[in-house]
Amino acid sequence: MQAIIISIGDELVLGQAVDTNSAWLSAELARLGVAVVEHVTVGDDLERIAASLRRAAAAADVLLVTGGLGPTADDLTRQALAQVLGTPLELHPPSLERIQAFFDRLGREMVSCNRVQAMLPRGAEALENPQGTAPGIKARIGRAVAFFTPGVPSEMKAMFAETIASALRELARQRGGSAAVVSRTLRCLGTGESNLAEMLGELMARGRNPVVNTTVALGIISLRLNASAADEAAGRALIEPVEAQIRRRLGNLIFGVDEESLAGVVGRLLRQRQATLATAESCTGGLLGGEITAVPSASDYFLAGWVTYSNQAKQRLLEVPATLLEQHGAVSAPVAGALAANARRLAGSTHALSITGIAGPAGGTAEKPVGLVYIGLAGPEGVTVERHVFHGDRATIRRRSVHAALNLLRLRLLGA
Amino acid sequence: MQAIIISIGDELVLGQAVDTNSAWLSAELARLGVAVVEHVTVGDDLERIAASLRRAAAAADVLLVTGGLGPTADDLTRQALAQVLGTPLELHPPSLERIQAFFDRLGREMVSCNRVQAMLPRGAEALENPQGTAPGIKARIGRAVAFFTPGVPSEMKAMFAETIASALRELARQRGGSAAVVSRTLRCLGTGESNLAEMLGELMARGRNPVVNTTVALGIISLRLNASAADEAAGRALIEPVEAQIRRRLGNLIFGVDEESLAGVVGRLLRQRQATLATAESCTGGLLGGEITAVPSASDYFLAGWVTYSNQAKQRLLEVPATLLEQHGAVSAPVAGALAANARRLAGSTHALSITGIAGPAGGTAEKPVGLVYIGLAGPEGVTVERHVFHGDRATIRRRSVHAALNLLRLRLLGA
Repeated sequence: MQAIIISIGDELVLGQAVDTNSAWLSAELARLGVAVVEHVTVGDDLERIAASLRRAAAAADVLLVTGGLGPTADDLTRQALAQVLGTPLELHPPSLERIQAFFDRLGREMVSCNRVQAMLPRGAEALENPQGTAPGIKARIGRAVAFFTPGVPSEMKAMFAETIASALRELARQRGGSAAVVSRTLRCLGTGESNLAEMLGELMARGRNPVVNTTVALGIISLRLNASAADEAAGRALIEPVEAQIRRRLGNLIFGVDEESLAGVVGRLLRQRQATLATAESCTGGLLGGEITAVPSASDYFLAGWVTYSNQAKQRLLEVPATLLEQHGAVSAPVAGALAANARRLAGSTHALSITGIAGPAGGTAEKPVGLVYIGLAGPEGVTVERHVFHGDRATIRRRSVHAALNLLRLRLLGA
Repeated sequence: MQAIIISIGDELVLGQAVDTNSAWLSAELARLGVAVVEHVTVGDDLERIAASLRRAAAAADVLLVTGGLGPTADDLTRQALAQVLGTPLELHPPSLERIQAFFDRLGREMVSCNRVQAMLPRGAEALENPQGTAPGIKARIGRAVAFFTPGVPSEMKAMFAETIASALRELARQRGGSAAVVSRTLRCLGTGESNLAEMLGELMARGRNPVVNTTVALGIISLRLNASAADEAAGRALIEPVEAQIRRRLGNLIFGVDEESLAGVVGRLLRQRQATLATAESCTGGLLGGEITAVPSASDYFLAGWVTYSNQAKQRLLEVPATLLEQHGAVSAPVAGALAANARRLAGSTHALSITGIAGPAGGTAEKPVGLVYIGLAGPEGVTVERHVFHGDRATIRRRSVHAALNLLRLRLLGA
């Protein structure tokens, strides 16, 4: 069973709001075994809405349509559906009663424009809205079944959970359900996307089940295994052996699964070892500490951090010798090492990470280009310094530096 | 001139990632007077990509296509375009050289699958990618002109700024542009959305030109003025008097315009006054320093920061008396004041900001609930402490704390 999701609103095509409904609905539909083949977004325009409905109904079994059901003049989804069905809009008294009751509950007067929300194309069905005034609509357009909800995410989600999910399950039974898509994401850091693809080789070939896809963000590669199967258990059974194969090939390049963050994984490793951490940051200005403490209860292992942004701060707060700064510059391996070693000593922590680099856009030279970053790690085993050259804008270089620092510590904690 | 934006990727139709590229591109196109009439998203499927390209090319003047240009087997946009054009893919030697040079710069070997990124359909044009390996593509499909970029937002944005924007301006000149939507965003902090709406009153009525909309994120209210006009200059002329009226009503609640960040505004004020800044953070863990140093050349005014996450760090690094911590607790006005005063003294800065609070989800009590945050500001005029109770999850409370701290300093610098 295939679905198309349609989002309606000028704010979307004008780029003034990001459509998050389509992604949310897609994930829900995948879980139900409904394959979403397309998202479409159009503005508050009667003809365009109607044209999208006609085209989508001819191409898919199910349409999920969000937006354009409000009480104001720019809400045109109801009218577009009536046009497509070739039927008039009629008052639906139970919906009007529900809207009236909604306003009564809030102790507010119902203004007349809300009446339009109780209008339905003849032959369509109202879907209760547990959270707002506008009822949803269920209608058959040709062979397709279309569900309409308001664009407000909380109302859309409540309506989906309340009525649409069960209607889709019933529909899938009638039409012979297609397979559920079961997913697993392996999160990797430490090599490039193309290199990783080469390590995976035939496992990434198209047409396999599970199919394996990669996406990259800030150096972190998400490896998604999507299995099509009759149900969740069968999907898991398909994924397991392939995940095991991938783990054998990638080893420690994989740091976590699904929504796990790098800082969360590092925190877990520190807690298991009853170890503590301090940080010394220059170009990242506190982002490393910020990322570490984004994890609840980071106070179990994170003691303190220094943001030694100026050279003077490096000398005064973290006792980096002036001669080291003069001889090698603030962005250098010896300074990264001294920052980490002194942060560890002053904080009294098991480990300390340091970052010093050139985040740009200015400040680069031929010898020390923008993107050059040294990462230091001090611990019971001594001090290690890694040299990186990251590409991208200031924000990207800073975020990638934070990831590289956390990954260096992760590998150290794993004994790699 | 009308445009359709096409986004490609299984992660989008599976709901594993939210498409933010389409909104960003739509806002840019609106600024150029190009009307975006539709967004379409399809998965990594050759036939579906090709079908979308054919349909969109028949319906619009311009296509913006993102995603599917990577080096792996699931990247199929290049092949789909070749199929639509009925031409073979050919090696484009200058692109191959650029990709090779990219890997050389990083000191990494180029694996063979990257070669596919230098393949172009015959007759298409390569668009340079200043940030990554995959070049973009410009091609004519029937009457439409199509631009292809990678899906990675930073690469897409760099490529748009570098080459696509000017190509679109030229195209609009040739084809006769439609009406431009000219926008201006006033960014406000310090009151709630409904309060602000009341202050604006009739200026927010529908049907006006410019129409005024609000959106809120992390306490920051964006007030958008959208004017429809024949061209940019006429749009600006419509916006100016309304902006002046709004500024009279809101005064210092407005901190910046359009993409200006609060940290950028504070940085400008510090630089103008030749003043310097230090930070002392507890619950935000470095995010305040991270936000301040997100602004290029922040080293002109930002000297140093401390992340005193544990009580011991507060005592040892910033000399907060143990008695103060015992009597009032770490989350208290006296501790916030001491953190700011001592950070200022130890860094030798003009001003210092401190943040101490309970970000949750654990750690709250009836007396000191999750969301309770004290913000300290030390300067030549003495020490001020503000008490806030923020709602939301851990990430929201931390981000809102950072904004409140920066805003406190902004108002101080303005003499408010």
